[in-house]
Amino acid sequence: MGGTAMTPDIDDSPLSRAGRTKVYAFYGGMVVVAVIAFLAIRSIGEGLGAPSGSGARVPLEAGQSINTLFHALLALAVIVVTARVAGWLFGLVGQPAVIGEVVGGIMLGPSLLGQISPALHAQILPASVTPFLSVYAQLGVILYLFLVGLDLDLSVLRKSGHATLAISHASIIAPFLIGSVLALGLYPILSTSDVPFTVFALFTGVSLSVTAFPVLARILTDLKISRSRMGVVALTCAAIDDVTAWCLLALVVSIVQARSADAVRTVLLTVAFLFVVLQVAAPLVRRVIPRLDRSPDLTRAALSVVLIAMLASAMTTEYIGIHGFFGAFLFGAILPHGSRIATELNRRLDDFVAVLFLPVFFAYTGARTELGLVSGVQDWLICGVIIAMACLGKFGGTLAASRLSGLNWRDSAALGILMNTRGLVQLIVLNMGLDLGVITPKLFTMLVMMALVTTVMTTPILQILLRKHPWVERVPSAALEGVARLT
Amino acid sequence: MGGTAMTPDIDDSPLSRAGRTKVYAFYGGMVVVAVIAFLAIRSIGEGLGAPSGSGARVPLEAGQSINTLFHALLALAVIVVTARVAGWLFGLVGQPAVIGEVVGGIMLGPSLLGQISPALHAQILPASVTPFLSVYAQLGVILYLFLVGLDLDLSVLRKSGHATLAISHASIIAPFLIGSVLALGLYPILSTSDVPFTVFALFTGVSLSVTAFPVLARILTDLKISRSRMGVVALTCAAIDDVTAWCLLALVVSIVQARSADAVRTVLLTVAFLFVVLQVAAPLVRRVIPRLDRSPDLTRAALSVVLIAMLASAMTTEYIGIHGFFGAFLFGAILPHGSRIATELNRRLDDFVAVLFLPVFFAYTGARTELGLVSGVQDWLICGVIIAMACLGKFGGTLAASRLSGLNWRDSAALGILMNTRGLVQLIVLNMGLDLGVITPKLFTMLVMMALVTTVMTTPILQILLRKHPWVERVPSAALEGVARLT
Repeated sequence: MGGTAMTPDIDDSPLSRAGRTKVYAFYGGMVVVAVIAFLAIRSIGEGLGAPSGSGARVPLEAGQSINTLFHALLALAVIVVTARVAGWLFGLVGQPAVIGEVVGGIMLGPSLLGQISPALHAQILPASVTPFLSVYAQLGVILYLFLVGLDLDLSVLRKSGHATLAISHASIIAPFLIGSVLALGLYPILSTSDVPFTVFALFTGVSLSVTAFPVLARILTDLKISRSRMGVVALTCAAIDDVTAWCLLALVVSIVQARSADAVRTVLLTVAFLFVVLQVAAPLVRRVIPRLDRSPDLTRAALSVVLIAMLASAMTTEYIGIHGFFGAFLFGAILPHGSRIATELNRRLDDFVAVLFLPVFFAYTGARTELGLVSGVQDWLICGVIIAMACLGKFGGTLAASRLSGLNWRDSAALGILMNTRGLVQLIVLNMGLDLGVITPKLFTMLVMMALVTTVMTTPILQILLRKHPWVERVPSAALEGVARLT
Repeated sequence: MGGTAMTPDIDDSPLSRAGRTKVYAFYGGMVVVAVIAFLAIRSIGEGLGAPSGSGARVPLEAGQSINTLFHALLALAVIVVTARVAGWLFGLVGQPAVIGEVVGGIMLGPSLLGQISPALHAQILPASVTPFLSVYAQLGVILYLFLVGLDLDLSVLRKSGHATLAISHASIIAPFLIGSVLALGLYPILSTSDVPFTVFALFTGVSLSVTAFPVLARILTDLKISRSRMGVVALTCAAIDDVTAWCLLALVVSIVQARSADAVRTVLLTVAFLFVVLQVAAPLVRRVIPRLDRSPDLTRAALSVVLIAMLASAMTTEYIGIHGFFGAFLFGAILPHGSRIATELNRRLDDFVAVLFLPVFFAYTGARTELGLVSGVQDWLICGVIIAMACLGKFGGTLAASRLSGLNWRDSAALGILMNTRGLVQLIVLNMGLDLGVITPKLFTMLVMMALVTTVMTTPILQILLRKHPWVERVPSAALEGVARLT
């Protein structure tokens, strides 16, 4: 009647021509007939017998699966909200949002929420959702590192290979040795007699040598310098650091489990994997991607192929024992930077992964961290010494190697402070050490404090070194002149 | 030297100015010194004692978490590959890809892979990844239904409300009564004496009344008619059907658990939730969205707010007991269709969810389905009768109600065959029945066969009814004239 072509009104609709009265009458009659009919069928059926036997009844199972989904959704919602709020608060004081999200995750764990209200904590993060959150969190990091890899230009990496390798290994060896010296002091106080000194010293060394590749990547991305020359060198060093650290960790694990052949296997398989990816997969990808890029939009088939290959790469490194994160990152890195598929994947998934996946990783790690165990003056002194030694080893080692490699003082110092970021990879390593019984819960907590402090100090010091106001991208610096060349 | 501004060659890099020899010498010396230093520290440390006591050692725990991630990645990769291949094969014979993906999921379960190679099946889908895959699969469906909701224009739904409600309830009541009659025949043969007839009849009725809302939505999307008038009516009916079916199911569950107050609570809470969403949230959203749409791109904050609200909505319906799927769908539906945020969310997430999430839902359901239990002529005859009765009830009931509501024969028949799609929601209901001990594994399997057959027959019959070649969108039909008006 009065309807436009865009919004036909009720009388234009074929469904309402029958008139409401008829519809209501039909509807009402239908329900009445149905109820009477069912009651009739029921009275007949009640007289029937059925074969005896148990139907393998599990009466409360159905409700359980609904509860798991409910708790998973609740946990997800609370984690995402906490991360956004904490990230926003940290942003106000000039810290990157990612550190706020990390602290938010720890706050949701036993360190704060578990202390304040164990009942609420058990309600929000019950044991039934832990298996889901654990794998989901790691899958999120895999997707995230894949995107970080996509953003990297591998041709730049290759050109600064030798010096980067030296800086990277210096930034492992110096803190590793300092960690071993530290072990001499910590072993009589904080270890237990069933842990051999060699294992303890190796573990302390490794835990001081870790650089948080994911957190470093997010700091660099948040500061918009992940594509600068220094950002690329830092990411490359951190990636090499992490591979080395995981190899060392595999060595420690295999010594603990008295199967030292595993360490050799890990190294050999890693080298073979790197060879296959860089020498076989990368040239293949460089030939296939331009063809996929020719279609007007990213097709579902192309997306499937890329995601399947990424999963396969992550799976392989997970199988080798150096963590699936590296496979995902590496596969992202060999996809040509700037290809339409890389740009489109980043555009589509970047925010989604940052909002719905990464906070869960932070909460998962926070759930396994307990800060309430450090108390008393002596404990805090030891904690302070650990933090000082950690900074000395990582910052000092990187600074020395960078200067020897020809970087100027400021860039060397910036690189040193960047490599001193330990964040969440450190927390994962520490959790493994705790699981293995190599470190006590108290030392675990002190090392967690160290990881947090070194991560939080990165941005302010970096901003001072780069002579910047809180938002780096607004004030280009001479130290970042590489950005202009690369982007 | 010969480098361009875009790709500086090695000699331009500050890192390589130091020269390779110096770097190598430094690097080699560093490693040698490190090894000697560690051995020296070790020889001192070996003499130290540590406090006695156990470090709460759990030696093999660390490897376990790595294995879970590996198996999750393996399962994910296999599931995604199987879904893509099976979907592609089914596409070749004119079936929508989604049915191939469903069949692929069942093939990965005990029905095929578990029969052929139990060892391979246990390797690909071990028990350790089930808790993850289960929640991940449901989260995927939540995201998917949210996107389907985004694609819906709620103003069209509201205009055909009364007739749609009548058609929808006719398409529930007819198969429900026919299912109850069927129960008279099945109860003496396939039930067990510990299940009361009333419960058995209610469950059989509900399981014949289910319409697979997610699969229906995908069939409509694959055929590109989800926005046509018939598509909208079918989706609305299916949504009402599913709410009603879940309410009936909640009734059955509460009778089984002898707490019939739960059914009343479920209905009241559902009505209250619908009121809040449609009368409070929807007007609020209509006011907020235009403001968010003003920013040049979808910001991370806007994305967070929308995803958090969607999770909260899904969580609420999950809490009520009518499944989180509906909350996600409903929240998607109240977001203004065509707003920038809705379009952008769909563009970014659609393919990603279809590739990386939905196949897991199909595999998860397939893992709980066992087709090997139906054998012998009598079994297959019973199975045939169940399928015939199911089609009669759903197709017949919908056809009658549609004709009475004023639709023409062809549209009524098309709607009838659409509502006859049972797919995966049916499989979920059946699994709940099996968990509750209401149906035996044999009857479960027969009802699964019924769900598959009714789902597979939908597309070919629909194509005949709409007089179309396999790809509907290429041959517009008179029955779809609404599309032109709405898009």
